[in-house]
Amino acid sequence: MVSPSVRKLSERKMEEEERGKLSLAYPMNSGDGPYSYANTSVSQRVVIDFTKELVQKEVAEKLDIGFSSTSPPKAFSIADLGCSVGPNTFSAVENIIEAVELKFESEGLASKIPEFQVFFNDHTSNDFNMLFKNIPPIRRYYAAGVPGSFYSRIFPEASLHFVHSSFSIHWLSQVPKEVIDKSSPAWNKGRVYYSNSPDEVIKAYKAQYEKDMEELLQARAQEVVCGGLMVFIILGIANGVNPFEAGGNRGFDLIGSCLMDMVKKGIVSEEKVDSFNIPTYLMTPQEFEAAVKRNGSFSAERIEVLPHVKVNGASLNAHQLTYCVRSTLGQLIKQEFGEEIVDELFDLYLKKLEEIDPSSIAEAEKTISFLAVLKRKPSQ
Amino acid sequence: MVSPSVRKLSERKMEEEERGKLSLAYPMNSGDGPYSYANTSVSQRVVIDFTKELVQKEVAEKLDIGFSSTSPPKAFSIADLGCSVGPNTFSAVENIIEAVELKFESEGLASKIPEFQVFFNDHTSNDFNMLFKNIPPIRRYYAAGVPGSFYSRIFPEASLHFVHSSFSIHWLSQVPKEVIDKSSPAWNKGRVYYSNSPDEVIKAYKAQYEKDMEELLQARAQEVVCGGLMVFIILGIANGVNPFEAGGNRGFDLIGSCLMDMVKKGIVSEEKVDSFNIPTYLMTPQEFEAAVKRNGSFSAERIEVLPHVKVNGASLNAHQLTYCVRSTLGQLIKQEFGEEIVDELFDLYLKKLEEIDPSSIAEAEKTISFLAVLKRKPSQ
Repeated sequence: MVSPSVRKLSERKMEEEERGKLSLAYPMNSGDGPYSYANTSVSQRVVIDFTKELVQKEVAEKLDIGFSSTSPPKAFSIADLGCSVGPNTFSAVENIIEAVELKFESEGLASKIPEFQVFFNDHTSNDFNMLFKNIPPIRRYYAAGVPGSFYSRIFPEASLHFVHSSFSIHWLSQVPKEVIDKSSPAWNKGRVYYSNSPDEVIKAYKAQYEKDMEELLQARAQEVVCGGLMVFIILGIANGVNPFEAGGNRGFDLIGSCLMDMVKKGIVSEEKVDSFNIPTYLMTPQEFEAAVKRNGSFSAERIEVLPHVKVNGASLNAHQLTYCVRSTLGQLIKQEFGEEIVDELFDLYLKKLEEIDPSSIAEAEKTISFLAVLKRKPSQ
Repeated sequence: MVSPSVRKLSERKMEEEERGKLSLAYPMNSGDGPYSYANTSVSQRVVIDFTKELVQKEVAEKLDIGFSSTSPPKAFSIADLGCSVGPNTFSAVENIIEAVELKFESEGLASKIPEFQVFFNDHTSNDFNMLFKNIPPIRRYYAAGVPGSFYSRIFPEASLHFVHSSFSIHWLSQVPKEVIDKSSPAWNKGRVYYSNSPDEVIKAYKAQYEKDMEELLQARAQEVVCGGLMVFIILGIANGVNPFEAGGNRGFDLIGSCLMDMVKKGIVSEEKVDSFNIPTYLMTPQEFEAAVKRNGSFSAERIEVLPHVKVNGASLNAHQLTYCVRSTLGQLIKQEFGEEIVDELFDLYLKKLEEIDPSSIAEAEKTISFLAVLKRKPSQ
């Protein structure tokens, strides 16, 4: 006999298998080569470091996991969703642990600081071998890797005290079906992204985002203990901004324009471009907050737009920006179009970027990062 | 500030770093080629299946994790130590989950069957990417991978309900220092294993085994909840048998004899053979029981020699045996001597095995598998 919760898990897995063809996994570039995610994620690192104080403040004020009772947890569980292969995830985790230790001390529980267990989560196709090799040998936590989509249940009930995720939840669980359906008004012919597309395409992307976010929040509502916190750092666009106005979106649209140039040259088949779409959606803080309210299991304690970050005082130049986009999308494009086109595509991308002003993409104020801190409400 | 337990963890990690040179990781052959562990571990699979009923009986009678109280655990945690890349680990885990579910039912707690979380542990150099790809998509548990040596702490305090390990703890944490020390009477010149060596070498291996086993039990004593169970399936030798009499040991000694032949041919340097030793120790059930008693945290509920298993009714022939040894030691030999000698070494191995009677190695009654069931005593 199987318990209802377990049966549900099996059924869910089966559904996932069935929709396997649409549901994609898009690992960041692995290894440690020049285009690897590990080597091109510096600006994300700067943001994570920047949020350190904010996270400490939120943990100090909001984390509420039985400090007043006689038994705070023996082990404190942290999950990082969409961790990639490091090093950013390790830095984020260290920040959280430091914040939790300070919280225990300020509650007069310095002698009861728990052991920490950190679950590094990403798609099964993530390079976990490299992640595990990168984990700092000297650390204050027990480490585990959890393969699987964070849009489904991946942890037991009430087993997490803290969830973190940076620059991950703008990835959708899949490309919206309609945009690759020739008979649909949302068919996204000749483009690979939504922001410069007809309304129907934008709507399909938004509906997919809303469905995914509800699944993410529903899964975490079961996994996170009451009073536990979730901190998201989200790549999005400013409230009230149209998708096509945001530089980040234009950066992705530009991939489509490069691919269509390659179609004209006969290097890439038009049909392939028509059926390829980048599965990301840049949400606004308002859209995120609305999703949290609809779900109802978490209170939004803080949603805050982060200041634009410059690495070494300068905005990214065309080369750096191309590296970033390549480390993010390179793997996905290789899967779809074959390795042989990747170099040429990004050479073209760099050229186009140099023709326009790259800072309009890298720094446009309409593309933002924002921090969201959610707290698990008591179950009713 | 860092809690004492956490500080201890950091210090231990540092010590491990320092002794890095001696402390080896020996992953099984990865991938899915003909010599992969996944494809040559059939006889181990037969043993695991064979023990299924024994495990069910032990769980039914011995597992004691708060069934009589009002709150059995919400999530039941299982760790498989030395899991390799599958499929044996998945089969073992399924057996355990079935046994625990039956136990809950027999205790009248069918409605309280918990969710299961399974931690797959192996060295950091294990192919976790392949393991994660192999995890059955339809399953009754949440899966996590835990990189690290099971001779150290790898889980938080009191976080495991069940520990399983099959055909893993005959691997030592490292080659005993003395056997590669030219100035020591235990220097193991011209051999790569202990069983056909002078007493000093055998003693050094045995001392390493005893130290390792104490570390393993001490670490698990902290990680396993009171009343929790550990099931080990151990490759060993029968009580009262001298190491050199056991066919399993002779199979490893034979590697040394092949390498020395290659030294004579000028293919391998003698110095390399002198400094290479296979880090395994085949313990007797008595030795294992003595280690458990010395440690004191677990009661030995059952220690039972398993009947010799035949795959498809026959014992392994020379080819199959060579495949097994190659899948087990191939990676280690490649690390030490370079990939280019591996084929020739095992061709030679096969020849030698065909000259002697392979069944004397494959089936000698003095090499055994035994099952040990330990239960975590209440802490005093």
